[in-house]
Amino acid sequence: MPFSELPPGPDPWPAPESRPLFTSAHLEVTQVCQRTPTRPQGAEWTVVHRKNACVIAARTHGGEFIVVRQERIPIRAALWEFPAGQVDESGLPTEALLRETALRELQEESGYRLAPGGELLPLGHFFSSPGFSDECIHLFLAQPVEPAPAGATPAEGEAITACRTLPAQELAGWIARGDIRDANTLAAYARLCALEQNPAAP
Amino acid sequence: MPFSELPPGPDPWPAPESRPLFTSAHLEVTQVCQRTPTRPQGAEWTVVHRKNACVIAARTHGGEFIVVRQERIPIRAALWEFPAGQVDESGLPTEALLRETALRELQEESGYRLAPGGELLPLGHFFSSPGFSDECIHLFLAQPVEPAPAGATPAEGEAITACRTLPAQELAGWIARGDIRDANTLAAYARLCALEQNPAAP
Repeated sequence: MPFSELPPGPDPWPAPESRPLFTSAHLEVTQVCQRTPTRPQGAEWTVVHRKNACVIAARTHGGEFIVVRQERIPIRAALWEFPAGQVDESGLPTEALLRETALRELQEESGYRLAPGGELLPLGHFFSSPGFSDECIHLFLAQPVEPAPAGATPAEGEAITACRTLPAQELAGWIARGDIRDANTLAAYARLCALEQNPAAP
Repeated sequence: MPFSELPPGPDPWPAPESRPLFTSAHLEVTQVCQRTPTRPQGAEWTVVHRKNACVIAARTHGGEFIVVRQERIPIRAALWEFPAGQVDESGLPTEALLRETALRELQEESGYRLAPGGELLPLGHFFSSPGFSDECIHLFLAQPVEPAPAGATPAEGEAITACRTLPAQELAGWIARGDIRDANTLAAYARLCALEQNPAAP
């Protein structure tokens, strides 16, 4: 079974021949020979497999966004980001599992939860770096959210150092100035901006 | 020398102890023990190192965006994306090298070039997946662009199957409907949207 599975596309390519090169707890590197529409004889590629993940853009009753500051070891810096995290199971996740993951990460990382009568809207998915990895990130908008009685309960191994709310105009300023610089938050913001201009789209 | 280097931050963490686990032509996996502000004793992490890359949002005289359709083997699908590519050298790239890379990728993938009097504006950088990789992508806006006499000259190993221009409103529609789903294009679009709301920001 593959480490992760991809959302079904309109015209999926056949599964490639695949040979494992390296495996750790959080990623798997394989060498594949993939047939593609322009390369029917197959092309060789090194692929890093990762589990699916979820990002949650969460807004309070007042419309402010929730952001958390997280230490990110691979880039040796802490970033302000929307809450996010991996889906526990490998394989193609169900819609229910994605929703559960998004809300779990929101509560664990920020201490917020969906308010009574609030809604969790899917905003589609994106690929973080499809030139070398199959990592697929599912986007959600939760509104309104409110503080949960349990507060934040960060997972082992993560280091969230702060959480705050941010008015929409201030979030735009942070993005314009380059203070938001993770793909998750930028991708969610891009979808939200595009949807504002195309309210009937999803 | 590290496989890639990171843009200088305001308060950089010390370089970690690092042990190679796996290396191929396009990536390097290492096990690091990184000291962080909340973990001064050091935390163990598996990191995938990648070269820096550039993405170029290019607009014609009429304001239309250039998008290319590219086969992406790791996700077994072709995506419509802004032109993009890796910086040839490893290590921290100069501003000049980033500009050269952005314009090279534009010409190679789409056959367009900066028009006389056109400008190439940096839009900052982002990290594609800072939970497991140090991949850093530098964003540019080029305008206006025009067809280059040489046309497109795709690099070996890439498969660009189409190129077209897209009015801004149509790009927003593609993003809203989930037809654009790579982090590069979404991150560039997020910065452009945020800058429209904060013209004085960069």
